[in-house]
Amino acid sequence: MAVTNSEAYTERLKQISPRVFILGEKVDQVWNHPLFRSSINQLSKTYDYAFDPKHREHAIVHSPLVDEPVRRLGIHIQTSKEDSLLKVKMTREICAERLCTQCMSNTMSSVWCATYDAEEKYGEPYHQRFVEFIKYLQKTDKAMAWGMMDPKGDRRLKASEQKPFCDMRIVERNAKGIVVTGAKAHTTLGPVCEEIVVAPCRSLTAEDKDFAVSFAIPVDTQGVTFICRPAPGSRTPMNMEKPIGSSIGAVEAMTVFQDVFVPWDRVFLCGEWDMNDRVPMYFAGIHRQSKCACLAGHTDLIIGIAALTARVNGLDMKATHIRDKITRLMIDAEAAYGCSLGAGEEGHHHPSGVWVPDFRIANAGLNNIRSQVGNHLAALHDIAGGVIVTMPTEHSYNHPELKELMDVYFQGGQNYTTKERLRALHLCQEVCASNFTGYFLGWAINAAGSLQTNEMAVRAAYDLEKRVNIAKGYAQIA
Amino acid sequence: MAVTNSEAYTERLKQISPRVFILGEKVDQVWNHPLFRSSINQLSKTYDYAFDPKHREHAIVHSPLVDEPVRRLGIHIQTSKEDSLLKVKMTREICAERLCTQCMSNTMSSVWCATYDAEEKYGEPYHQRFVEFIKYLQKTDKAMAWGMMDPKGDRRLKASEQKPFCDMRIVERNAKGIVVTGAKAHTTLGPVCEEIVVAPCRSLTAEDKDFAVSFAIPVDTQGVTFICRPAPGSRTPMNMEKPIGSSIGAVEAMTVFQDVFVPWDRVFLCGEWDMNDRVPMYFAGIHRQSKCACLAGHTDLIIGIAALTARVNGLDMKATHIRDKITRLMIDAEAAYGCSLGAGEEGHHHPSGVWVPDFRIANAGLNNIRSQVGNHLAALHDIAGGVIVTMPTEHSYNHPELKELMDVYFQGGQNYTTKERLRALHLCQEVCASNFTGYFLGWAINAAGSLQTNEMAVRAAYDLEKRVNIAKGYAQIA
Amino acid sequence: MAVTNSEAYTERLKQISPRVFILGEKVDQVWNHPLFRSSINQLSKTYDYAFDPKHREHAIVHSPLVDEPVRRLGIHIQTSKEDSLLKVKMTREICAERLCTQCMSNTMSSVWCATYDAEEKYGEPYHQRFVEFIKYLQKTDKAMAWGMMDPKGDRRLKASEQKPFCDMRIVERNAKGIVVTGAKAHTTLGPVCEEIVVAPCRSLTAEDKDFAVSFAIPVDTQGVTFICRPAPGSRTPMNMEKPIGSSIGAVEAMTVFQDVFVPWDRVFLCGEWDMNDRVPMYFAGIHRQSKCACLAGHTDLIIGIAALTARVNGLDMKATHIRDKITRLMIDAEAAYGCSLGAGEEGHHHPSGVWVPDFRIANAGLNNIRSQVGNHLAALHDIAGGVIVTMPTEHSYNHPELKELMDVYFQGGQNYTTKERLRALHLCQEVCASNFTGYFLGWAINAAGSLQTNEMAVRAAYDLEKRVNIAKGYAQIA
Amino acid sequence: MAVTNSEAYTERLKQISPRVFILGEKVDQVWNHPLFRSSINQLSKTYDYAFDPKHREHAIVHSPLVDEPVRRLGIHIQTSKEDSLLKVKMTREICAERLCTQCMSNTMSSVWCATYDAEEKYGEPYHQRFVEFIKYLQKTDKAMAWGMMDPKGDRRLKASEQKPFCDMRIVERNAKGIVVTGAKAHTTLGPVCEEIVVAPCRSLTAEDKDFAVSFAIPVDTQGVTFICRPAPGSRTPMNMEKPIGSSIGAVEAMTVFQDVFVPWDRVFLCGEWDMNDRVPMYFAGIHRQSKCACLAGHTDLIIGIAALTARVNGLDMKATHIRDKITRLMIDAEAAYGCSLGAGEEGHHHPSGVWVPDFRIANAGLNNIRSQVGNHLAALHDIAGGVIVTMPTEHSYNHPELKELMDVYFQGGQNYTTKERLRALHLCQEVCASNFTGYFLGWAINAAGSLQTNEMAVRAAYDLEKRVNIAKGYAQIA
Repeated sequence: MAVTNSEAYTERLKQISPRVFILGEKVDQVWNHPLFRSSINQLSKTYDYAFDPKHREHAIVHSPLVDEPVRRLGIHIQTSKEDSLLKVKMTREICAERLCTQCMSNTMSSVWCATYDAEEKYGEPYHQRFVEFIKYLQKTDKAMAWGMMDPKGDRRLKASEQKPFCDMRIVERNAKGIVVTGAKAHTTLGPVCEEIVVAPCRSLTAEDKDFAVSFAIPVDTQGVTFICRPAPGSRTPMNMEKPIGSSIGAVEAMTVFQDVFVPWDRVFLCGEWDMNDRVPMYFAGIHRQSKCACLAGHTDLIIGIAALTARVNGLDMKATHIRDKITRLMIDAEAAYGCSLGAGEEGHHHPSGVWVPDFRIANAGLNNIRSQVGNHLAALHDIAGGVIVTMPTEHSYNHPELKELMDVYFQGGQNYTTKERLRALHLCQEVCASNFTGYFLGWAINAAGSLQTNEMAVRAAYDLEKRVNIAKGYAQIA
Repeated sequence: MAVTNSEAYTERLKQISPRVFILGEKVDQVWNHPLFRSSINQLSKTYDYAFDPKHREHAIVHSPLVDEPVRRLGIHIQTSKEDSLLKVKMTREICAERLCTQCMSNTMSSVWCATYDAEEKYGEPYHQRFVEFIKYLQKTDKAMAWGMMDPKGDRRLKASEQKPFCDMRIVERNAKGIVVTGAKAHTTLGPVCEEIVVAPCRSLTAEDKDFAVSFAIPVDTQGVTFICRPAPGSRTPMNMEKPIGSSIGAVEAMTVFQDVFVPWDRVFLCGEWDMNDRVPMYFAGIHRQSKCACLAGHTDLIIGIAALTARVNGLDMKATHIRDKITRLMIDAEAAYGCSLGAGEEGHHHPSGVWVPDFRIANAGLNNIRSQVGNHLAALHDIAGGVIVTMPTEHSYNHPELKELMDVYFQGGQNYTTKERLRALHLCQEVCASNFTGYFLGWAINAAGSLQTNEMAVRAAYDLEKRVNIAKGYAQIA
Repeated sequence: MAVTNSEAYTERLKQISPRVFILGEKVDQVWNHPLFRSSINQLSKTYDYAFDPKHREHAIVHSPLVDEPVRRLGIHIQTSKEDSLLKVKMTREICAERLCTQCMSNTMSSVWCATYDAEEKYGEPYHQRFVEFIKYLQKTDKAMAWGMMDPKGDRRLKASEQKPFCDMRIVERNAKGIVVTGAKAHTTLGPVCEEIVVAPCRSLTAEDKDFAVSFAIPVDTQGVTFICRPAPGSRTPMNMEKPIGSSIGAVEAMTVFQDVFVPWDRVFLCGEWDMNDRVPMYFAGIHRQSKCACLAGHTDLIIGIAALTARVNGLDMKATHIRDKITRLMIDAEAAYGCSLGAGEEGHHHPSGVWVPDFRIANAGLNNIRSQVGNHLAALHDIAGGVIVTMPTEHSYNHPELKELMDVYFQGGQNYTTKERLRALHLCQEVCASNFTGYFLGWAINAAGSLQTNEMAVRAAYDLEKRVNIAKGYAQIA
Repeated sequence: MAVTNSEAYTERLKQISPRVFILGEKVDQVWNHPLFRSSINQLSKTYDYAFDPKHREHAIVHSPLVDEPVRRLGIHIQTSKEDSLLKVKMTREICAERLCTQCMSNTMSSVWCATYDAEEKYGEPYHQRFVEFIKYLQKTDKAMAWGMMDPKGDRRLKASEQKPFCDMRIVERNAKGIVVTGAKAHTTLGPVCEEIVVAPCRSLTAEDKDFAVSFAIPVDTQGVTFICRPAPGSRTPMNMEKPIGSSIGAVEAMTVFQDVFVPWDRVFLCGEWDMNDRVPMYFAGIHRQSKCACLAGHTDLIIGIAALTARVNGLDMKATHIRDKITRLMIDAEAAYGCSLGAGEEGHHHPSGVWVPDFRIANAGLNNIRSQVGNHLAALHDIAGGVIVTMPTEHSYNHPELKELMDVYFQGGQNYTTKERLRALHLCQEVCASNFTGYFLGWAINAAGSLQTNEMAVRAAYDLEKRVNIAKGYAQIA
């Protein structure tokens, strides 16, 4: 059955044994280790969402590939304008609640296009294999990790100039498949997934041809090692503090591949260096459209926290400086969301059938909102006041004498108890004054490309000559 | 026939005699007066656009009201998502070329909704009359002016508190119709139109009920006087200088109504003060969606001029500070356009049949781009250099000896002659360093509402409690 | 002797026993507790700075009050323009190195002015007492904490309207002194100081007169309790990670006063509610001048980290997007510093002898830079890349097998070892992606007033009528 | 006598006959031509300022060079910190009233330093000659024009690569002096001055050595031609409209030099190409310090107009959106002014005796404010409303019937007559919606360097390694 629930997912996790290290120690049972709990919870919510009667209608979509329902954001290939619009509507709402949709449909749609192009040009059955792989995923509903970013080493050097090599590369080709060595950085949630899809992240030259490689393998394949960073909040789960991170989170990993064998039916690119830029190119439109909606959702979450924080301090939208700051956040959220819809509306069909959103709009909208996230977090500080960086930890509130004092001296707006105020302030603190803050900035600034890559994408897709010609017309320049 | 061309329009103009003053003098033949030429030209282009084979497909739409083709942006009532999306696509392109689409379809769709609401509540046949009026316009293809903004006098006072009264008001009701006195400000292009539609601009209280009035009359109705401001560039049409204003422009007017009679079949609101806010409310969504696209188009025009100006100076997108500034302009244009599409996509049907775009997205997108126009004009100065405010007027270049010197000392990039450079610089100057500059700022900052009204609209439409509830969930506050 | 070193300071700490709680537990020996080590280290550096031959010349100043040298930033009353300029020059440099100068000279100079005004108006010897207190501090060189911010409870209510009362207040007046109850929030470093000076934070009304109180007492006075929050980094000191917080930091505290007796010679305000706004008023000029320089210094620190981070990634100022971002940081730092100097230059003498910097410039400069700190931290993410939120913790690098892999896959610019790169990335992470990040934002947004208080201060001090009169002159309006 | 008044200045103008063209026609008597009246008025105010008892104390300074009083901003060489601070204090106030101080003391101090350096290196008596020239100017009090910017032609090419040559260059050296050909752009007010000082504007290479030239000559020297652009407002002086430009202004000119002979005692650089960057370098500190204060003054003027405009509309600082916008303007003005003072404070002595302000602060402050001027003008539109671009010209108000209507329909705040409101709106229009607007932008964006040159200057002067070393210390990188 193509749509499974969180129970089935966690049961499957128990059957696999990836090689995983965290805080410098080897992990035997990822599914049972406290440092992975919030990550498993995050993915579990992703699975169970499809069974929620409120969301089922859009969360599940019929896949013609396997003639079965599949999870829309998880594994569906986006082939219509409607797909791309429903996707971003769901994305905003989900991200406003739990930060991330684990939207593998975007990455898979990008590889779908890229393998199509490569097969068209070189005749190798990359796309046919990838279609089969997608069918397999749609039938099994397995959790996928996305391995795209090479380590890159010295940023001025090409992959083949690094000493030693660090980017993913083919070290052997044989009858049964290929052997690869290298690493992929930022393989978010990788250790709690079942399969990892490896895809290219940049343009290459002929010298780099062994670095042009794309494939998919189970996470517990021989030779694969995850070196992890715990999700924020997972290290010391609290009661009042870190309410988000105590519930959900995303373990991060550098995934190292040491002489890993990949059978041919799982190889989606193998040496065609001039095709290496295709995944990042399609990703720049398909995934950034979602990222606009994702950051709109994050901003919605921040708005809710900002308004609640003002209230527990005794203030609300009648205080003009609070009203104005929250309105600014609303405008940023709506404009980003508007661009995610606009990009979907203005898209086109790739020959492979994928609906590709407009690059200019998606990248413009994303550039705008991602440049504001530092200000959004600063706005939370402004609304909350210094208390979020100076207040005692929740341990103090658990001490009876201190609790009594704190109930008086941390009282706030009269509609809330001190305990409620402290809970709201801890939530605010988690977002803008804890290690979680780094993730909010990181997701905004570096996930799905950077400010610079957005700018390059807009420039590349904008028809400047058309606009210069209008100016020439007025200036009577031939 | 419902779609007429510029020849028919100008012929019709000759048949009417509105009372018009400009530069303090009465104008006898508006159609023949040099100060109105650029305005008539602007409207003429609007008419002829429908006959351009390149644009005909979208420029004309079949109206079920009259079972005839009509001009989409001129008089069509927008009743579908597709309508609202095609509208903004056309709007961006047209505004990038000639600044304005004269989009009366937006204002008419707003009144369409408002009269529907008023008729629903009060049973007066306001909507029926307005439908008949629209049919009349669709059949005759007459040029309409839009009179919405009351003078407002002292901004802290209500209409009924002004001394003397200055806003539009009913001074008599009789069997045949009503008599009105007052004025409407900013009746752009009014003196070169045929009919003027008067609509409310703000909320009223019961004391203001005589100020709740909406109607339409021919511009040469007894008692109507236009006190005009010439379009920029029209006063001293030049050859090299002011190339835009020498071609197109928009005469402005304060339109004064002195005891003007309006027959009942042209009265669309009459005393129902609580319905007075309906036009501005619908306008806030319907017209601001277009305004996003309009300002995207203006930004496209600025981009073309910026790039051309850089080139005539010998520079281009390889100069990183020029590249970065132009990229910023591109991002602003695309994000505004993205929001105009997104607002259309996220809209809904009004009971009257009109497709109303999403208020939050339209106002957010507009707030963002309108706040940047000062920076856009500054960017032109930055790219052009001081020459645009210090260079001699074109008279100097017409003097043979000076021309010889100027050909040497105003030379620029080697791909352009000095004359071409001067033409480009004059174009740039017109946009960012002439009286036309004021219009660019005015269109951005004050046309179709203000930064503040956008903010109010976003706030009003944003579901804050939904977001606060998510925060409360994390904070475990009931 | 009036200038003591860190050894003397820590010896003195051993002699006192404040009542201190942290993480919900009572602390017996603050001087010997690991959670206070970074704070004691921070203050120790403040003491030893005066003995550094490089800094001695400016760090020490002769005090005419006690005819002895004293620490300039610690306890000197600023009585000349030169004082105020030397102060900010030192402040920027120190804050660029160790974040904070513990500049009690600003707070003391503010109270100096305020007590002078109160004594002038009411004849009570507040200023005389305060002068004696300052002499005592100058002679003993004791570490002072600053207790200014009342808890405020519901922000819409006055002190006397809170239920229960939470702000500091006089509960008894007797022959020997007064008894106070209440709390002061944000008493940074309080538990590692020796005396605490309590001062007013806002305007009061006659109803609030019991809340108008200022005084100073030893930190281990009966009835005083510090409820602390550990300094960032102090909880789990690391080797590579959190290099700043492992060295220096500032424990925070809510300081509660329960029926605390204060002898008359330590009472500096007692019931004169209309004088309660004097400390915040003078503070708004005197301390914010320093805060401009302080945030300039923080920005310098961020610049250094940004440039180092770029280098360990193999990039430098030749990459234009890095160059531009770092240049923006430089401009913000220099403009803030320029305003701190300009405010000093444009100051005036208070009748008490204190040199009061210009309010408009100090508040304008501070408003500008504090509004940029969210962007500064975002710039660090942009320059560093996603690695700072996804890289493994240092535990992994201590595991031999993982170290070997990490040496390859975390390599960066070829001029640096992987270990050096990791150290630099951990430093960058600490500033922009750890709980320390919250402090950077908090220091910017909420310390020494807020964006709003800056705006109010500028507005209040700006001579608007003078500028309106120039406009009236051009407009010929009498 | 070294300080003369406007009468003396205009009398002197009658004695000289520069070759001047404007609007393509030759001007015989500049002093008597309406298009030069506002410019002469501007300079006249500069002269008479020294005789105003209110300003005399600072406006005049004793020059040790000639042992006589001279005009401080006009011709004094700035040799002390106090000089540089008094200069910017006066500059802000004067620019807030009449836009420009004609601060030749800055340009002369820059050449003073540059000629000192050139004489030091090459032994040619450039500095001695320049000192004599300054003495001559101080004794005669003649009005000087500043010719610095070469035309530059194709911006990618060096001076010696332009075809034909367009930058200023030496075409002959002989016993008596040199002969020069070329042009200087942006010689503001040149045609109403008496002497023109020509100075270099950029770095050169050895190939460009003939372009390294600096000198001074009377404006009516044989071979000099001014091709002028009228000052804004001067073309059609009005009564109510354009109140600023009807009074003061600055004619602009491209000044062409055709085989102009310069005697050796007026030659200040002649072929030493590596010294050509000295004037722009010193100018970058000395003049930009003033420019910060100048733009602070412009902002003050805008603030006054903004507040007056709000009032004539019936609004004031109680309207929060107006209050917030005007506060933003105040902050920008104060921060720029603060930096101008800070740069003076942080300066140093050049070996020639000139006090050189700090480059980093001057350029940072200037970069900040100049980047905001587009927003300042947009704020005026926002506060004024659309009326400033749609209202009738003053001709209408002169027509009795229209006046009667306008008195009703253009009424505003009840404390002002309609006439007063119209006057205020026309003033506002002149600044933000007329050709004068281009000058406000031009003065901000392009005068005294650009955003880019500020950024380069800050970068060049900032000690980045010092800050990187602090980061290295924390990261334990040697």
